[in-house]
Amino acid sequence: MRIGELSRRTGVSIPTIKFYVREGLLPAGELTSPNQASYGETHVQRLRLIRALLDVGGLSVAAIREVIVALDDPERSVHKLLGTVASGLVPRYDRESHAGIEEARKQVAALIAARGWRVGEGNPASEALAVALAAVDEAGHGSFVEVLDAYADAAERVAGADLDFVARNVAREELVESVVVGTVIGDAIFSALRRMAHTDTSDRMYGETT
Amino acid sequence: MRIGELSRRTGVSIPTIKFYVREGLLPAGELTSPNQASYGETHVQRLRLIRALLDVGGLSVAAIREVIVALDDPERSVHKLLGTVASGLVPRYDRESHAGIEEARKQVAALIAARGWRVGEGNPASEALAVALAAVDEAGHGSFVEVLDAYADAAERVAGADLDFVARNVAREELVESVVVGTVIGDAIFSALRRMAHTDTSDRMYGETT
Repeated sequence: MRIGELSRRTGVSIPTIKFYVREGLLPAGELTSPNQASYGETHVQRLRLIRALLDVGGLSVAAIREVIVALDDPERSVHKLLGTVASGLVPRYDRESHAGIEEARKQVAALIAARGWRVGEGNPASEALAVALAAVDEAGHGSFVEVLDAYADAAERVAGADLDFVARNVAREELVESVVVGTVIGDAIFSALRRMAHTDTSDRMYGETT
Repeated sequence: MRIGELSRRTGVSIPTIKFYVREGLLPAGELTSPNQASYGETHVQRLRLIRALLDVGGLSVAAIREVIVALDDPERSVHKLLGTVASGLVPRYDRESHAGIEEARKQVAALIAARGWRVGEGNPASEALAVALAAVDEAGHGSFVEVLDAYADAAERVAGADLDFVARNVAREELVESVVVGTVIGDAIFSALRRMAHTDTSDRMYGETT
């Protein structure tokens, strides 16, 4: 198909499609004449992926490029690919000089040990967790540690459902793309559900009396 | 204290403190002479809040300003305040023209009914959920609906722990600030835990065989 049809089918404007090609997010079309390129279903699929990561996941163009390079590498094992995806999509924090960071790292190590999680040292998500715990503590609203077990229970439940879903539904060649979409959009879905459950719980606790 | 000490105690540079004052995030200090202002513990506390929302929550300066205006309004009831906070902190998506949005809205309404959640129509988190579900569906990785119940169970568990924590630990005057911090940083904490649980589950499922 020509670029105009690709634009119509995906809802992405022609200048934006050209921008994605220049930025290395989307492979160039096959040249059918010096001024015309032809695009296929892989382009449609890739544009939908970019759009999901950008619109709902809130990823930057640079972060999406990293993910796509990992996707296009045929060499990696499933577990390594899942690890790359999980680590690559951990939000990065601007500062890491929070006062209680050492204490928070110990809390994270204790949690991993108590849960028996197979999470290696230097895992980016563990470090992200330590930074977040240190930030809550520093903001002066009591220690988050007492609710951490409820969060970890919930995370195990969600991660189990995520991986079951992947194992049941996804062919090998789509596996990593599916994990990327699920990891990024799964955060948005959980975040929305948590707010809805807050509204419900708050209504039950405070709705009638205040 | 002078601005230099405020900077040392919070790790926020003097130009950045002045920027926050200009942007309306931080109240100005009390002028003690035409060129010198004095700051107190409320400034320390407010800077820690701004820093947590910015560094870990990834909120924009504009979003933080909205939250702070809500915090400083003494008129609202607890439930209304919690509602404002929960709605105000829902991530906004750039586009909402996803093809399956009407279908996704029906799925969300069915979920709310099945759970008996007291979540009104037009709740921003419900709409955010519909957009995310439509985006997953559009990206072509199967319907997320089959795992939605596992996510909703987990969200109820986390929201219950959140509100219990608030009810046990937080004085009335700090309630809303605590909910803001918990809502924003709780997302980051859950997201990190989910990735750690992914790493663990993936290692168990795929680690030895691939």
